[in-house]
Amino acid sequence: MKPLFIFSILVLTSLGMVNAQTERADTSAIQKVLSAQQEAWNRGDIDGFMNGYAKSSSTTFVSEDEVTRGWETVRNRYRNAYSDRSQMGKLTFFDLDITSLGQDSALVTGGWRLEREKDAPHGRFTLLFRLTDAGWKIVHDHTSAAPQLQHKKGLFSN
Amino acid sequence: MKPLFIFSILVLTSLGMVNAQTERADTSAIQKVLSAQQEAWNRGDIDGFMNGYAKSSSTTFVSEDEVTRGWETVRNRYRNAYSDRSQMGKLTFFDLDITSLGQDSALVTGGWRLEREKDAPHGRFTLLFRLTDAGWKIVHDHTSAAPQLQHKKGLFSN
Repeated sequence: MKPLFIFSILVLTSLGMVNAQTERADTSAIQKVLSAQQEAWNRGDIDGFMNGYAKSSSTTFVSEDEVTRGWETVRNRYRNAYSDRSQMGKLTFFDLDITSLGQDSALVTGGWRLEREKDAPHGRFTLLFRLTDAGWKIVHDHTSAAPQLQHKKGLFSN
Repeated sequence: MKPLFIFSILVLTSLGMVNAQTERADTSAIQKVLSAQQEAWNRGDIDGFMNGYAKSSSTTFVSEDEVTRGWETVRNRYRNAYSDRSQMGKLTFFDLDITSLGQDSALVTGGWRLEREKDAPHGRFTLLFRLTDAGWKIVHDHTSAAPQLQHKKGLFSN
């Protein structure tokens, strides 16, 4: 049994090494996706920004009590909400935290801020990244914002 | 080499079987955690509700632009925001969707609604569950709410 024992140790060790090499999400690839999103946004390129999301009908974007499902629907939501360059402002992501959930998933949390001429909306996001055939992509985005002091708007608009 | 070959096939096959049995998150265990949270909330038991969260300093709760970190800090936030039974109302979770991310992680999305005497706040949540020594627990919670029509409040309170 001795050679079999040694052989099985070798098999198990090599399997372990392969596993150790692949078990963690690629955080630098994920950081690049987020940097590319920020750059695309700041040149007014919503399609470039949308390249960070998985082109899938199950990709979801959650905000307030609203769920938007499907890559194209999410893109349309962004296009409608940010219909021109001044609406888009200058986007910054900060406080990024990437937690690997194995070789093909990672949870990413962080803050976002839009610098615009008349306001600076800001808030937090929670993203689920998955490793897809097209690389690391966002499959789920839950984004929230600081309250916009709507009572002030209400005083004038109601 | 024949016995070695057969032995290695046996080793690889048994490893594969173990993997297949354990690779998916236990969705029924996760559903039980959420049901227990709902029941605890609806008997006014915030500590029982908090039992769904990992008792860890890295457990996070995100809402609007605010990040609350650490199990005790999250509990204090709930205690302050829901200081009596009428504030807590009757909690319902709905639209639950559990995505396994391997044997020890799952992403859970859903809707929440509080029925209270004078209002019914509602919204969405995104939860990351991990399998801990104490079972499946929430380690990250991003919760958002439908806008509360604050301009109405503003008209009277400003």
